[in-house]
Amino acid sequence: MVPKELIDFLKKEDTFLIATHFSPDGDALGSAIALSMALRQIGKKTVLLDKDPVPHAYSFLPGCKEFITIEKFAGHGLTDFVNLVLVDCNDLDRVTSNKSQISSLKFQTSAVIDHHASAKPFGDIKWVRPETAATGMMVFHIIKELGVKITSDMAINLYTAIAVDTGNFRHENTTPDALRIAAELAEAGARPNEISRELFDSWSEGRFRLFIEVLNTLEIIDNIAMMTITQKMFEETSTASDDTETFVEYPRLIKNIGISVLFREIDDNSYKISLRSKGHLNVAHVAEAFDGGGHKNAAGCRIKADLETAKTELLKKLKGTTAR
Amino acid sequence: MVPKELIDFLKKEDTFLIATHFSPDGDALGSAIALSMALRQIGKKTVLLDKDPVPHAYSFLPGCKEFITIEKFAGHGLTDFVNLVLVDCNDLDRVTSNKSQISSLKFQTSAVIDHHASAKPFGDIKWVRPETAATGMMVFHIIKELGVKITSDMAINLYTAIAVDTGNFRHENTTPDALRIAAELAEAGARPNEISRELFDSWSEGRFRLFIEVLNTLEIIDNIAMMTITQKMFEETSTASDDTETFVEYPRLIKNIGISVLFREIDDNSYKISLRSKGHLNVAHVAEAFDGGGHKNAAGCRIKADLETAKTELLKKLKGTTAR
Repeated sequence: MVPKELIDFLKKEDTFLIATHFSPDGDALGSAIALSMALRQIGKKTVLLDKDPVPHAYSFLPGCKEFITIEKFAGHGLTDFVNLVLVDCNDLDRVTSNKSQISSLKFQTSAVIDHHASAKPFGDIKWVRPETAATGMMVFHIIKELGVKITSDMAINLYTAIAVDTGNFRHENTTPDALRIAAELAEAGARPNEISRELFDSWSEGRFRLFIEVLNTLEIIDNIAMMTITQKMFEETSTASDDTETFVEYPRLIKNIGISVLFREIDDNSYKISLRSKGHLNVAHVAEAFDGGGHKNAAGCRIKADLETAKTELLKKLKGTTAR
Repeated sequence: MVPKELIDFLKKEDTFLIATHFSPDGDALGSAIALSMALRQIGKKTVLLDKDPVPHAYSFLPGCKEFITIEKFAGHGLTDFVNLVLVDCNDLDRVTSNKSQISSLKFQTSAVIDHHASAKPFGDIKWVRPETAATGMMVFHIIKELGVKITSDMAINLYTAIAVDTGNFRHENTTPDALRIAAELAEAGARPNEISRELFDSWSEGRFRLFIEVLNTLEIIDNIAMMTITQKMFEETSTASDDTETFVEYPRLIKNIGISVLFREIDDNSYKISLRSKGHLNVAHVAEAFDGGGHKNAAGCRIKADLETAKTELLKKLKGTTAR
């Protein structure tokens, strides 16, 4: 199932720069780290690269300290690493939006391992499978094909990749294969309980207080739930925008809610808006109408207006969508 | 792995009364229904029995309408069903606490299939495996041993059993085997996404409003979170005690919280108390001190006192526990 060309490339070459996208998530980090560990086991030299530092939430991943940021890499002597492996993204623009940083990445051969859809993925060797729940599952198959035994450190990284991208086995992409690989990783030493606790039950008290504040703003109009976060709430709970990550998901606990919207105050009269929907309801269209974007069930945009106007304008578009 | 004696019994006999515990959960219902379906496929006659009606939350389970309550069963002509199979419990007292109802259950041979620990399980044939995450996993193996192909209806029931008892693959009991069987069930037609939506994302709006009310009562003392539900909150949100089921879990999202407590007002000066803990913290001991009971990480009790007194008394015991 893994392209022979990719396995041959990984076996033949000696040094690899393994890079993933900025603002890395569990799938990006876990996939890259596990691949690096496996390649090192068969005697390869690897460097792990990400534009951004590893987020604190992922500091439990074994090997995450191996990542270097792109600035450090520039002075690192690139010439040793002529082969690029891009993991969990398929475009150099996702590695960094800074053109001069991209042009500093010189390499001879490039391979892409990704599960994001793309009209025209970058790379000399491309393995892009949008039907796969997580890039971590693809890396799992690569490691097996390389004949490397999956260590417990690799297993923790790959299990995290799958748990994050399937919403801990709750999203539509939870295939038999995702569960089967998770089982093998648990066998190899990943502890589902401990990983899910790290991923999902590690809020600060301030974050939980913020959560309650936000829930108290809930308004429901037809099948649309709307909540708001103000700058004042962040101040009062000593929290920041990172702490709001899953809040917009919660109103979806309600059976009749089809769309959940979170308004986050950026500035006076400026709101960042997160949209989530269930099933066939498409919020990407709505986000696009306000120059935003995203996927069918998860999108975002900004509106420059006071809160009441922003809500009214968004609702107008949303009601069009839900009626369709 | 399934005792030969049990398989022989299921193969040899013709009619089975399959009973499970009162207040049935997803593991009780899913295991019993799937076993009944498999036995019918090999030509057996089965009756599914539970003291209580199937809770509305489980009405999505295929075959759940086959359950009859113990009252209906009494006039049903018991003589046809001389073999009892007890599923997800190992004591007739768990089927009904009404002694006269128990004595009306006449049978020749009894088998027990359960994952709850017991000093002295009931039954002529006993298969009790406390190390197994869900009884549904045991029934999965039985169905395979019987040589019956797992249909998608059976798969939905068994997947539900596992999802409920592992907290959707987040509890400590999420073994490689639990994930492996879940994978096979997904292959056989269970849809993880749809089942988890039915199980976890089907709150009424009133329940969500109640949830917010309850969160607003949060107090944190050291590593202990305490929340309260009053009768007035139920009235204002048109909800009932069933709607509070997972509320006590939420403060465990906070990293530093070791114990979460929910006080539910039963009457003036009478509170039902739910306790949850993480890891080694044992709340069963505390519940027992107030004539309650439960497991290490999930227990309950009642205190007859006003709220402030109840909190003070409980905190005294809890602080003893956490210091140990």
